Amino acid sequence: MLGQKTALRLAESGLAGSGIDELILHDIVDPAPLEAGFTVTRITGNIADESEAKRLAALRADVVFLLAAIVSGEAEKDFDKGWTINGHGTWHLLEALRAQHEASNGSYVPRVVFSSSIAVFGGPFPEKIGDEFLCAPQTSYGAQKAMSELLVSDYSRKGMIDGISIRLPTVCVRPGKANLAASSFFSGIIREPLNGKEAILPVETTVRHWHASPRAAAKFMTHAAELDTALLEGRRSLNMPGISCTVGEQIEALRQVVGNDVVKLIRHQPDEDIIRIVSNWPRNFDPVRAKRLGFAAESSFEQIVRTYVEEDLPRA
Amino acid sequence: MLGQKTALRLAESGLAGSGIDELILHDIVDPAPLEAGFTVTRITGNIADESEAKRLAALRADVVFLLAAIVSGEAEKDFDKGWTINGHGTWHLLEALRAQHEASNGSYVPRVVFSSSIAVFGGPFPEKIGDEFLCAPQTSYGAQKAMSELLVSDYSRKGMIDGISIRLPTVCVRPGKANLAASSFFSGIIREPLNGKEAILPVETTVRHWHASPRAAAKFMTHAAELDTALLEGRRSLNMPGISCTVGEQIEALRQVVGNDVVKLIRHQPDEDIIRIVSNWPRNFDPVRAKRLGFAAESSFEQIVRTYVEEDLPRA
Repeated sequence: MLGQKTALRLAESGLAGSGIDELILHDIVDPAPLEAGFTVTRITGNIADESEAKRLAALRADVVFLLAAIVSGEAEKDFDKGWTINGHGTWHLLEALRAQHEASNGSYVPRVVFSSSIAVFGGPFPEKIGDEFLCAPQTSYGAQKAMSELLVSDYSRKGMIDGISIRLPTVCVRPGKANLAASSFFSGIIREPLNGKEAILPVETTVRHWHASPRAAAKFMTHAAELDTALLEGRRSLNMPGISCTVGEQIEALRQVVGNDVVKLIRHQPDEDIIRIVSNWPRNFDPVRAKRLGFAAESSFEQIVRTYVEEDLPRA
Repeated sequence: MLGQKTALRLAESGLAGSGIDELILHDIVDPAPLEAGFTVTRITGNIADESEAKRLAALRADVVFLLAAIVSGEAEKDFDKGWTINGHGTWHLLEALRAQHEASNGSYVPRVVFSSSIAVFGGPFPEKIGDEFLCAPQTSYGAQKAMSELLVSDYSRKGMIDGISIRLPTVCVRPGKANLAASSFFSGIIREPLNGKEAILPVETTVRHWHASPRAAAKFMTHAAELDTALLEGRRSLNMPGISCTVGEQIEALRQVVGNDVVKLIRHQPDEDIIRIVSNWPRNFDPVRAKRLGFAAESSFEQIVRTYVEEDLPRA
């Protein structure tokens, strides 16, 4: 999903400071076609395969957006699958890029934009998580993201790649279907009612969380590709801006945008597994560095709802 | 070195709450013999080999002290060797222990004490590093330790092992010969003069750093083996107590213990590589959690010098 949004944004706005000749879309399923003012190549394959990573790296893209991942719920259920794809998979790709770097006598140093997550954090939390707060993940997914960040950082420090890890807020409202992420309901309670369907709310309305729209997330990705990484001063993982709000405030925003009838489609049905996982998630951030570096998100959850209504509802 | 000190401590004091039947020493070189009131088995092999990790795990030790590592200077010079041994090596061992856990239908859950390091931290630093400060390693060694911590934590969270990562201060005064660690001189400037030899000081005397004696470090290891890990509340990496002092204060402590003539054997000879690496190292900590959990170190650098004089100088 985020890959498609990022591709769309590249097609619409390009990248500051450099023209795009070609965009290569790679996914485990056939990537959606894209109309753009540059060549679009679509490749299907499993990025977690070492040979596939080598094949992709050999294309020597100037910028690599690494978005592939097993989502949090699935990585928690299937320990091997999560570590293989989110852990070893990242490592294989970095090794393959490094091999290209070395084969080029050091002239090839791709910008790697790694989609990390606020799941790298684990409670107890301060009221707002600052830029120097520890990573203490409480899910395998979070541990895999934190591990990948360490690799991105060390390969970058050695000059093999020029990487940056973007710790995405929960992306909300996600278009399309619910997925296995434990965070899926944050989008579901907005998206399903807007599409005239019932939505299950598995947690209390007092649960507070950190959100950004798919549009904002895609902008984080392209801004990370454009950024002068010298400004990162060796700390290549960044907490992104977002909106901190409770589930109750999310629902209220939905009511403001489309009225009470739609809101009635949300049904509260507690799920102990999700309650437990979400209770360990961050509630609020103070992303000073990212803001200073020009990353920007929405200013209200209502704006996030309107973004979905404008951008994704017509296609749903 | 730390393995020997830990073994010696186990032979002298055992482990609180449980008798020791057998101690298995494993090293890449033939482990030194040890006299103890229990069976001592010595094995030579390369822990980074997957098959060796499996062979060791099959012994189903109740407690595994994981001390093997490529030191910081070497891991920085040889990227592949560092990541292979400090990264993949830890992973292989954890996988092998997990296989034993699963083969036992979950009854085998070894305590794993992982020797991590303050190299997981990178500047800029606060005056004192607190327990919630981020890991932003500026060496491959630090990144490898931080990555291993994430694995130890996630395998523990899943109940496959019961792990704890001990972030050791620079261990000083190390007995024996200088090694390839960039921190080697911190010990060298004390050890060499005490043995009547000239010592090279590659940095300014104003450099401040964080130290604990080998004796204190071995106690950290055995205390970590004895600890009720429920008290860690899911945060299984701990900053250890130590002594914060400048190189000048180290030299002054040496002077206090053995007088001015010995101190004259220290020769200042700047090394830009070491100056650069060390400038990114922590200077001071506030290890509240570890102290609360009963970990204790020396109270002065003079005491650290006296520990060496008592324990290691006679054998040197």
